[in-house]
Parts: sequence; structure tokens; C-alpha cells
Amino acid sequence: MMHRLISDTILCYTDSSGHTPLDDAAELVMEGNNIAFSTDTFVVKPVFFPGGDIGSLAVSGTVNDLLMKGARPAFLSLSFVLEEGFLFEDLERILESIRRTSQQANVRIVTGDTKVVGRGEADSIFINTAGVGNILPGVNISGENAKPGDAVIVSGTIGRHGIAVLAERNGLNLKGNIISDASPLNDVVLPLLGRFKEAVHTLRDPTRGGVATTLNEIARSSNIGIILDESSIPVDETVNAVCDLLGFEPLYLPCEGRFFALVERSSAGEVLAFLTSDTGCSEAAIIGEVTHSTPGVVQLRTTSGGLRILDMPSGEMLPRIC
Amino acid sequence: MMHRLISDTILCYTDSSGHTPLDDAAELVMEGNNIAFSTDTFVVKPVFFPGGDIGSLAVSGTVNDLLMKGARPAFLSLSFVLEEGFLFEDLERILESIRRTSQQANVRIVTGDTKVVGRGEADSIFINTAGVGNILPGVNISGENAKPGDAVIVSGTIGRHGIAVLAERNGLNLKGNIISDASPLNDVVLPLLGRFKEAVHTLRDPTRGGVATTLNEIARSSNIGIILDESSIPVDETVNAVCDLLGFEPLYLPCEGRFFALVERSSAGEVLAFLTSDTGCSEAAIIGEVTHSTPGVVQLRTTSGGLRILDMPSGEMLPRIC
Repeated sequence: MMHRLISDTILCYTDSSGHTPLDDAAELVMEGNNIAFSTDTFVVKPVFFPGGDIGSLAVSGTVNDLLMKGARPAFLSLSFVLEEGFLFEDLERILESIRRTSQQANVRIVTGDTKVVGRGEADSIFINTAGVGNILPGVNISGENAKPGDAVIVSGTIGRHGIAVLAERNGLNLKGNIISDASPLNDVVLPLLGRFKEAVHTLRDPTRGGVATTLNEIARSSNIGIILDESSIPVDETVNAVCDLLGFEPLYLPCEGRFFALVERSSAGEVLAFLTSDTGCSEAAIIGEVTHSTPGVVQLRTTSGGLRILDMPSGEMLPRIC
Repeated sequence: MMHRLISDTILCYTDSSGHTPLDDAAELVMEGNNIAFSTDTFVVKPVFFPGGDIGSLAVSGTVNDLLMKGARPAFLSLSFVLEEGFLFEDLERILESIRRTSQQANVRIVTGDTKVVGRGEADSIFINTAGVGNILPGVNISGENAKPGDAVIVSGTIGRHGIAVLAERNGLNLKGNIISDASPLNDVVLPLLGRFKEAVHTLRDPTRGGVATTLNEIARSSNIGIILDESSIPVDETVNAVCDLLGFEPLYLPCEGRFFALVERSSAGEVLAFLTSDTGCSEAAIIGEVTHSTPGVVQLRTTSGGLRILDMPSGEMLPRIC
């Protein structure tokens, strides 16, 4: 429904000429330079969760959207909506987390805005970040560029962010101690592109809607099919257990510090070796492939050998997870 | 209090090196080009008001912040927080207004985000816009650049936006039919800078806190004094009458389609003539001057001849006006 709201309504009123409107960032040419520009508003509930908070998430989210466009993140804006009565010490804790995460991501926060609304007119704090970055020379990455034969590589276990927030929100006491994966990806993605810029066709971080939804978007934008291999997909045991218990599917859970890359088949082994050894993505894996057949459709080869269609989710499975 | 929250807390955690942190937009150097970058979140209540709505305001606000930095606005991002149950027809009306205003402002909306939160978790709709633009060659405009002797020129009557929103919110039935001034200023500011780029030292749109607050910020940033002449300040009769009735001071009321310029004394007459004839700012006026004495202080020479200090306002006079 969100996909339809955005595609059918909002995009009709905005300008999508010259770029792929459903990519997470826009590509702009300003005075001859290729610049990526992205925005996200964060409304996660609760504001603090294991492994992060709305501040670290707001920096990571926009930084990662720029990286997914092949850009080196440079500058962020930061805009708050605060509910009257929001605790000053919580704001300071969030600001400290923003400072730390933006240092880690090597971006400068250069402009901002703060609005305070009355009690009950917002839920504690919402944060918008917008970001600009320079697209790396020679890089041509887009949701439209996936090619039949490409391997689908994921950078680590999926679904941890979704389960960490969900557990915190509902007071679930998880033995496995699931911590959100929320993190800026610059230390992985920039070296990856430095080395394999021609082999990488598409990058995407599976945030809202998870791996299944974002791969569906790519399958439609690139007009290709995707087949995933269930047994290859890295999922934490605890995440799997919670999913079994609550009826979630890990492939639809949001990650905030993972990405997948669609890369030339011939380079896939090298890319995987680079990720697992040099960048600390020890659980990265090849989880599927791009096909000629069934364009626009994502399918899962289950552990029992069958093929199941992974559709766009209808309705919001997990509201306010980012 | 907002000034202190931003100065003492938020700016401590962000990076203010290399630019004036309290300007409405940051100046960035990307690949050798000077770029302005700005953000604002709009929470105006009610969403529709005479002369505009949250959509036209969100475009005008960020476009004007870029212009006040001497930049030609180029690209906007657009990010919504929608309360569950917000009417689809209201969203479409706002989107249409965004489309129209961005055409008028000659900017392209290139990236966006939409979040939906539960009923009671936000008040109908909040919109963030961020924008980037190219700083015009040879222009050097900043809140730090005001010089003793400069004339203070305002582009039109002040306070209409504040009174229009206030009247709509409180169901006041104003005979004078006050319409918000909210509007993008590109058609005025770009020609002004094309012609007088060396004479213009500072530009600012007196949004939150109005003329008095924004001039106080400039007096502090530039370490100069400012004396305004009450009898020269253009104010609509109805705005004045409502202010008398409700105890407001027009100088603290927000405008969303006005600006003031601090310009070389020797060019002030020419700049004023240019504004009143060529750009349709028929009510533009020279309202004051910059002084050596009393640095950091803004004073008003009243109609009765006395001098009164115009301080920063304490507490928020008019919440959710933009």
C-alpha cells in the first residue's frame, strides 16, 4: 500500500525525470559534478533500542542511502520535531549518538532545524536527515542496472534491526540478546566500490520491507527475475526463533546496517572473499541469482526444493521500525 | 529558549566549523563548487490557511533559505510524516500545491520519503524539505557580513503570515481578509543579486521570531548595532489592528515571503528603487541602519522619538506557525 501511495500519488506530483524515482537517493548534476541527494524521516518507537537509538539510525539511514547510489557521503542536515515535555537528557543522549555515528560515517552535519509541538501532537521525537555526497568516478549503480546472471550477495545476517526494535517495544525478553544491525556502511561499501566498481550493478540496503521488498523493487525496475536460495540466507538463530513464534518471515524484516549487491557472476566469488576477509562482513553470502525468466518476480527456492513467490507485502507489517 | 537550545545544546554536537552555524543554510564546497544546503520541517497548524498551506510553505521556506545564502535553488527533497487517517484528498491538495510552488520557484523535487504513524502519534501531517542550490559567483552573503552604515531594507509589509495562520487557527473573522505572504522569493532575489551583488551584505527572511529576532541574530553574528525607525516599517492596517487587540508586536510576527537586505548605504536608494519598480515589491522600504555603537543590540526609534530595545523573545510566542 505504501508502494502504491508513493508510486501512484506522490510521484505524480514530483519530478522523476532523469533519475530512477524509487532509488533511495537521487543523482544530480550540479556544475558538472555527479551528486547524490537523499532524505529520510525517522519515527522509530521506542527511541532507544538494543544496539542503537533514533539518532544513530537517522545518521546511518541517510549515509547508507547515499552509499547505495555509489556516492561518498559528505554532508548531512538534521531536523527535529520534539514533543513538548521530551526529556532533555534523552535529547542529549540522542545528540551524542548522532555525533558519534557521524564521525564513524565520516560526514559533517552542517545545517539543521528544530520544531517543538504540543503534548500529544507528536510521539516524543522524529528526526529527519538529508544528505549529499559525491558519486564516485566510474561508478554506475542503480536499481535499474541488474543483469540476468548477476549474483545476489548479502553482507550479513538479516532481520536483526526489526527484531531488536520489536522486542524492545513489546518487552520481549530474548535470551539470544539480539542487537540491531543499525550502522553506517561506509567502511565496507567505499572499499568495495574502489575495487569492484565495474562488477557491481546494484546496491541496496534492505530497510523497510526487508530483503524481499527491496529485491521486488529491483526486479521491477530492472525488468528481471530473481531466485533466492533459502538455505544460503544468513539468519541468526534467535531471529529465526522469534519469527517462528510470532509468524514473521525474516526476508521481510528491516535491516539498517546490511546491504545486498547484485554483481557480475564472474566476479561474485572474488567480491564475496573480499567482503568476508577484508571488511569484517564475516557472514556475507551469495544468496541468489538474477534470471531472464519471470521478469518482475522474486522467488524463493525453499529448503525442501520448491519455488515460492516472494511478493511485495500488503499492509504495513511492522510500523515505526525506522 | 529555542535560541539557547540550539546554540548551547544542539550546535555542541554538530559541526559548525567553516560556516556560520546560525545562518539558515550551510555553505559547502563540493568538488570546487560552492553549494548551499538547507533543511526545515514544517508543522504548521492548521494545515490550510488563507493564502497557502503546509505544502506551499514547505517549498517556499527551504527555497527562501537557499536564496538568503545567495544561492540559486536547484533541487529539493520532500519527506512526509502522516498521521493514520489523514484524508487522502487533503494529501492530494497539498501535493498539488507543492507541485505548483516548486514550478514557481523553478526547483525540482528529486527524492523523498513517507512515514505513516498511528492516530494520535502526530498531528495530521508534518513535512520536511531539504534543498541544495548553487551559490552565485561573486556573491558573499552572510549573517556575519553586516557593516556599520548599512541600510536595512525590508521587501514588503511584515507579519501577514503570522496573523493569517493565527486567525485561521482561532476562527477569527477578520474584515481586512489577511492572506499569508508565504511565497518563493526567487523572482525577486535572483535579479536583485544579479544587479547588486557587491552592495548586498546580508539577506534574511524573518520567519520564526519575525524581523526583531532575525535582526538580533545578525547583530550578534556581525557584532554591530541596528536601529530601526518604527514609522518606516510597512505593516498592514489589519495586522496592526489584530496586534493591538491581542497584544502582539508586528516585529515579532513571522513572514514567509518577505526578506530584508542589509546593503551599502551608498546603494540603498538604487536597491529600493529596483525593488519597488522592477520586482513588484511595491511596499519595500528602508526601515533602519546598522551602527558601530551598541554591538549585538537592536533598537527601535518609536514614533514618539524614544529608543526602545528589541530583545530576543523569551518563550515561544506563536507555536506551530510554520
